[in-house]
Amino acid sequence: MTRKELIDNILKKRSFLCVGLDTDIKKIPCHLLRENDPVFAFNKAIIDATASFCVAYKPNLAFYECNGIAGWQSYEHTIHYLREQYPEHFIIADAKRGDIGNTSQMYARSFFEEQDVDAVTVAPYMGEDSVSPFLGYEGKWVVMLALTSNKGSMDFQLCEDKNGERLFETVLRRSLQWGNEDNMMYVVGATRGNLFEDVRQIVPNHFLLVPGVGAQGGSLDEVCGYGMNDTCGLLVNSSRGIIFADNSERFADVAREKATELQQQMEMILKKRGLL
Amino acid sequence: MTRKELIDNILKKRSFLCVGLDTDIKKIPCHLLRENDPVFAFNKAIIDATASFCVAYKPNLAFYECNGIAGWQSYEHTIHYLREQYPEHFIIADAKRGDIGNTSQMYARSFFEEQDVDAVTVAPYMGEDSVSPFLGYEGKWVVMLALTSNKGSMDFQLCEDKNGERLFETVLRRSLQWGNEDNMMYVVGATRGNLFEDVRQIVPNHFLLVPGVGAQGGSLDEVCGYGMNDTCGLLVNSSRGIIFADNSERFADVAREKATELQQQMEMILKKRGLL
Repeated sequence: MTRKELIDNILKKRSFLCVGLDTDIKKIPCHLLRENDPVFAFNKAIIDATASFCVAYKPNLAFYECNGIAGWQSYEHTIHYLREQYPEHFIIADAKRGDIGNTSQMYARSFFEEQDVDAVTVAPYMGEDSVSPFLGYEGKWVVMLALTSNKGSMDFQLCEDKNGERLFETVLRRSLQWGNEDNMMYVVGATRGNLFEDVRQIVPNHFLLVPGVGAQGGSLDEVCGYGMNDTCGLLVNSSRGIIFADNSERFADVAREKATELQQQMEMILKKRGLL
Repeated sequence: MTRKELIDNILKKRSFLCVGLDTDIKKIPCHLLRENDPVFAFNKAIIDATASFCVAYKPNLAFYECNGIAGWQSYEHTIHYLREQYPEHFIIADAKRGDIGNTSQMYARSFFEEQDVDAVTVAPYMGEDSVSPFLGYEGKWVVMLALTSNKGSMDFQLCEDKNGERLFETVLRRSLQWGNEDNMMYVVGATRGNLFEDVRQIVPNHFLLVPGVGAQGGSLDEVCGYGMNDTCGLLVNSSRGIIFADNSERFADVAREKATELQQQMEMILKKRGLL
């Protein structure tokens, strides 16, 4: 999906919501365990309930891999279902991959040729040749970890170099030489508050993928206040706050309500910022 | 596997060789493509040919994932075969994972409970809570990226902070608070020369997993000169240099020859250092 198509979808849907499909088989409603593929059955219901209110889905691979081959099948069914039924939705494989060049090339082939997702999250520690193999695909995206939402983000991402530049800033700045705003986004956690301003100093126009709203404690208003730009420039992810808001037979209805709430807040913000 | 068991195996085998099972289906001998599971058939032949000369195997997940469900099956067959036939061999899942705490927990469950491998490679960028879930398993190991063998390692790993400490040194130093020499190893590329001395200043006793001997240009003598300690402290990996040394029907015999050559060099070094 191109940048223009993504922006058009955001304006059309009046939403920049990404629903995180972190489908832990131990947390899904019991009645689904009778299904052939319970994780896919759960995802399908969540997708059908939320598709009108979001522009993107982000399955985190960890929740599929931990079920072995069955998990891989659930993941493939989910991607296939999205591609067939909701071709306008942006799919982010949250895999946080990154390896030496020839190995990253294999991952890129896997995500972009076999699975045909739109984007994959990539960890920057191994540098340019671990990232660039993902950048050679038309209409496909790298979403690079910059400033994550977890406590451990303080351990290295905020380390300052001798010029006072923090590691996440070095990551942003260097990566500008590898890709551009049409094929790269960055992960910036919703819990990071005014550090968004420092991110925007370096990447004013790029899309940011923002996890951590909801269960992790980040505020949508704060994120938008600091991080929104004149083409929106944000994909805000909510996982647990939507998909596990209820675990009765009504789970999909409650997920729809939670997604609707976020979409409505987003529509208000987009209007206030003059984007709608 | 405990540290003592690993050291005992090294002394018994007179080898600290790890064979990298980076099995690219596009590079395996044509006659194997007739098999039900060509990648597993290749791995099985390589394992049977090399097991006497090595102490560890390291499948890189990228080469399996890129074949989807079939690839996942090849990977599981390979792990199962190793566990059944060669229980003394240390298995490293080269996955370079790392995510927020509750997600890393899912990866840990996957690798250590479902697959039952001995170790998994982990990327440090997201900090402590992305790593510590892997450390709660008796006899299981985190192999953390420190100083990798690729060109891109220069991009961030060598960045100096205001005290002159480079990022890989910060990673080593901080991680000493998370784990210890019984549950952590570090990846240090064979191409890094005298930087091994700087690594050993911080982690004198830990095992180092050393990729990059062979195809990537690292020298075994140099690695051992700088990196070996009094319990060996090294697992030296070779992938392409062994498994793709030949792609005729003789591939496994040639792989055995290459593994034997490395084992013999390792035995000489272990003797010279008084470890045998």
